Amino acid sequence: MKYTQTGHKLVRNITNVKGIKCWGAHTGIKSLRRDLAIIYSEKPCSASATFTQNDVAAAPILLSKRHIKNNIAQAIVINAGNANAGTGKEGYKGALAMAETLAKELKIDKELVLVASTGVIGQPFPTDEIVDGIKVNARKLSKSRKAGTLVANAILTTDTFAKEGHTQFSIGNKEINIAGIAKGSGMIHPNMATMLAFVLTDVAIDKKLLDKTVKNLVKKTFNMITVDGDTSTNDMVAVLANGMAGNKTITSQNDPGFTDFKDHLEEVLVHLAQLIVSDGEGASKFIEYKVTKAKSETIARKLVRSISDSLLVKTAMFGRDPNWGRIVAAAGNAGVNFDISKVDLYIGDSKVLEQVLEKGTPLEFNKNHLKKLLRASHISILMKVNTGKAEATGWGTDISTDYVLFNSVYTT
Amino acid sequence: MKYTQTGHKLVRNITNVKGIKCWGAHTGIKSLRRDLAIIYSEKPCSASATFTQNDVAAAPILLSKRHIKNNIAQAIVINAGNANAGTGKEGYKGALAMAETLAKELKIDKELVLVASTGVIGQPFPTDEIVDGIKVNARKLSKSRKAGTLVANAILTTDTFAKEGHTQFSIGNKEINIAGIAKGSGMIHPNMATMLAFVLTDVAIDKKLLDKTVKNLVKKTFNMITVDGDTSTNDMVAVLANGMAGNKTITSQNDPGFTDFKDHLEEVLVHLAQLIVSDGEGASKFIEYKVTKAKSETIARKLVRSISDSLLVKTAMFGRDPNWGRIVAAAGNAGVNFDISKVDLYIGDSKVLEQVLEKGTPLEFNKNHLKKLLRASHISILMKVNTGKAEATGWGTDISTDYVLFNSVYTT
Repeated sequence: MKYTQTGHKLVRNITNVKGIKCWGAHTGIKSLRRDLAIIYSEKPCSASATFTQNDVAAAPILLSKRHIKNNIAQAIVINAGNANAGTGKEGYKGALAMAETLAKELKIDKELVLVASTGVIGQPFPTDEIVDGIKVNARKLSKSRKAGTLVANAILTTDTFAKEGHTQFSIGNKEINIAGIAKGSGMIHPNMATMLAFVLTDVAIDKKLLDKTVKNLVKKTFNMITVDGDTSTNDMVAVLANGMAGNKTITSQNDPGFTDFKDHLEEVLVHLAQLIVSDGEGASKFIEYKVTKAKSETIARKLVRSISDSLLVKTAMFGRDPNWGRIVAAAGNAGVNFDISKVDLYIGDSKVLEQVLEKGTPLEFNKNHLKKLLRASHISILMKVNTGKAEATGWGTDISTDYVLFNSVYTT
Repeated sequence: MKYTQTGHKLVRNITNVKGIKCWGAHTGIKSLRRDLAIIYSEKPCSASATFTQNDVAAAPILLSKRHIKNNIAQAIVINAGNANAGTGKEGYKGALAMAETLAKELKIDKELVLVASTGVIGQPFPTDEIVDGIKVNARKLSKSRKAGTLVANAILTTDTFAKEGHTQFSIGNKEINIAGIAKGSGMIHPNMATMLAFVLTDVAIDKKLLDKTVKNLVKKTFNMITVDGDTSTNDMVAVLANGMAGNKTITSQNDPGFTDFKDHLEEVLVHLAQLIVSDGEGASKFIEYKVTKAKSETIARKLVRSISDSLLVKTAMFGRDPNWGRIVAAAGNAGVNFDISKVDLYIGDSKVLEQVLEKGTPLEFNKNHLKKLLRASHISILMKVNTGKAEATGWGTDISTDYVLFNSVYTT
């Protein structure tokens, strides 16, 4: 990342993307924190979004799915504090009112507005307050860095810090910006779980090509993170590209600049996904899981997810316990005909890895040295399955006593 | 249950099954607790067993699967303290040595011996010590009640109490006994996870019919319990029927006595499954999940399991938090096209349930009353999905801060 959080100092954010204006405000849904965010592009964008696969999808998810069907969007409105999920027809009316109100203020078609919500499930949705808030704040949209910071903060719930990223590169002589914000914390899981991420770019790209690219990258990034294995009702990742950088529109994977764009977009998505993990509720460790030499990428991903989802692996990492038995047992549950007799396994921190298994046979490793490595806040687990050439990486947290305490009293 | 744990006083156990002898001993694998159990039937038995589906199956699982292929068995040898998993060829030799040694001592065919292990994964298996222990203790087999108690204790690992049950009924003028023991604690999960259960009966029943009956009942009992969602490498449930009650052999589901036998066997399996849950590592609550009015039993079971596996539901129950949003969100992840708009949901203790949702709409329930109910150690969650007539029940625990502490330091 060219520009990102460094000691909480962010040099650039979504307002550095050409044509993007935004504002974040406090409407009163949440007692103290900002709870309403509006993002607007001066021109309509090629747009792609991925949504939760939970059958109990929130009202804004149902609405946004409709609005993005043609892969065009121009504005996003997000509220925090109330998830607008389990709220029935009234909830859907509320989500619709959010889109209609913002569309009217911005004088654009309501189908160009995406809506997202995050917060507690099953509470009546305070439509009137939010509609009033949109009316007041749509007039404040700004390109100031402060506006970007406000938006990044206004979408948070239990997060402990705002999650932003920005990168820049060139296509021909045109400067391209990609920037995004995210929120996460609890319930982070593969298949898009309690997470919101909004990425803006000024690149010019065909909407169908953008859609395909985003969907592939989400599989490798947001779908490879886990905190507690639950999938929420409100997840959404959206990428909007307004073309205002002025590059010749990218229309195929062979176009000059496509690979550059894809790599930089992946960098931003990985960055936001990792920030979400590192702010996991009550987590004390960031864990990177890598499976290499697998028969296929799908198998490698299934193994990463099965290991990273295991509560026993997570608690072992919390306890700095190099219990490799739990790691291979979790791999054995992945449903991929896991053959332990071929596996090399390594555990360590971000720099030093100790090999603990060679072709399925336990090695006489230095347990005290390894336990010292596991004191680090960044843990790495590397498994070579030695049946092919594919690989996958995922990110997760440990589960701490704090996690349990925190999640036992969420609504009360 | 006619005879079971009541204030830790057990009137009858597996030694009340005709022809069953056993012994439990200390060989030194574990420093303080008994760690070797032997169960023997004077006559060969119709036998059925279900095993872990984890790809990293332990050596005794691989061996016992072979030995029970013909649905006949006569003895079981179990060690605790070392799981003999992730131990490669040496481990398999160890499991085989256990079967061979016991067969030689009992003068029976080695294929009639089932082997089970439980304990830490990936430690070299102490074959010599266990073989010596089998030689010494096979000579001590006894029908005394004490012997039954020793066996129930010798198969435990982190369990805090021995798990036994016994029931009795008649077929014609013949008295039939069914009795069993189990071990559980951490890693309890559908699909046979870190659990051992051995059930003995003196009923005379055709081996194929027994096998079919046991496999159906395991789906409704042991596969419907959950503690932490991990599936272990060593799970095994075996039922042996030696026919020594003298009833006319049951050969079909229409035979007199079959339904009686099936119902009593189910009672024993449910009893053992519930004991396993109630001893879940660090659990503070026993939770019964019931889904009714579903389209099919499979759908009902998937819903029960998705809800009972949710870490967010478990932590909410630990915190006495009637957070129904997490329950419906977990149901939405079951992959069964869950329709929240039809759902009635009730939460309470073992006696009183408060309705919190009616046809998907939140009711104005008395939150303080409900939170008082959730102080109970037995919690009930009832979901009517109102799309059919099928139902399923499952059992689980909350996840407490103690669970995390306990599991963070298991091997260290």
